[in-house]
Amino acid sequence: MFPSRFKNVLDFFTRLPSLGPRQSIRLIFHLSSWNKSDLRIFGESIIALTEMKTCPMCFFIHENENDLCEICNDHNRRKDIIAIVEKQTDIVSLEQTKKMNNHYFIIGDIKRNFAASANYERINILKKRIDDTLSGKAAEIILAISPTTYGDIITGTLTHELFDYAHKISRLARGIPTGGDIEFADEDTLRNAIDNRK
Amino acid sequence: MFPSRFKNVLDFFTRLPSLGPRQSIRLIFHLSSWNKSDLRIFGESIIALTEMKTCPMCFFIHENENDLCEICNDHNRRKDIIAIVEKQTDIVSLEQTKKMNNHYFIIGDIKRNFAASANYERINILKKRIDDTLSGKAAEIILAISPTTYGDIITGTLTHELFDYAHKISRLARGIPTGGDIEFADEDTLRNAIDNRK
Repeated sequence: MFPSRFKNVLDFFTRLPSLGPRQSIRLIFHLSSWNKSDLRIFGESIIALTEMKTCPMCFFIHENENDLCEICNDHNRRKDIIAIVEKQTDIVSLEQTKKMNNHYFIIGDIKRNFAASANYERINILKKRIDDTLSGKAAEIILAISPTTYGDIITGTLTHELFDYAHKISRLARGIPTGGDIEFADEDTLRNAIDNRK
Repeated sequence: MFPSRFKNVLDFFTRLPSLGPRQSIRLIFHLSSWNKSDLRIFGESIIALTEMKTCPMCFFIHENENDLCEICNDHNRRKDIIAIVEKQTDIVSLEQTKKMNNHYFIIGDIKRNFAASANYERINILKKRIDDTLSGKAAEIILAISPTTYGDIITGTLTHELFDYAHKISRLARGIPTGGDIEFADEDTLRNAIDNRK
């Protein structure tokens, strides 16, 4: 029933994470109602993503002339504090707090890498970076990894592996999220909230 | 923090309904990891949507050489039975049941049009279509409009307006949805389910 041009776009939309077929169909019907010039610029903006580069220092995307991303290029940030995150969006979330003034390192999708044990490759890249740029020791490594089952295992591995590479290894605090209800907090969260009270 | 090429795509994504900024950001990070050839074909497939046409008979999209859409072109369907729907996706949902063998007419987004009273324009187009192709009277008009507050008002208006244009005006049945629980059905739904029992 769908025209072929519609199906072509649908094939790509359904490859995107978190977009199901129904939502994709709705989005493409909406797109089809856009004016031609907007559609053309939208399509071209997607094609322009082919020119995006990955920072070899932290693995965040960028489009700078030189190799490094915006954050790794920023000399006002403390390069001896490295926050390790799972994915690019986590950097966005942390940066939006305006509390971070450090550099980052993306360790990669935890669940996928954990299965493939491939994150050791990234760990070794980080070790080499600390050796090369911080003479082997960072002031602080912040493990900004989500406190899930997988995340906790990875956090354990990273703490072990990077023990000699930082003066201090810290983790984000656990507790009751703002707006959360004590009644519905799980035991582990409550236990952490009690232990870390101040 | 976002590269300009990233922001360009983000501007368009956030214009799509049901995509919030967080989900859009996640999708574009994912897109940025696609290989260049896929990205290029994806962008081109969106640009190709500019060649999509709207059927003047029912307002469904198509890409046929002649003016009419797939469904209006299909001579095996009963053209004297017209299902009126709110939007294009509703045709997709109804067609997927494989129970429909009729033609359609898209009356347009109910909430938006209701505010602007603009759906009278579409109603007049439908009246003219029935005059021209069915000598002024359809065998049946199926009002396939969602039973929401707005939908009920529109259904009332359509029943009134099209009274002389069909031998029979029907609506989709109301009742408890498959998998639904009587305990959680609202009173109106239950009342309809009792009245229409068989």
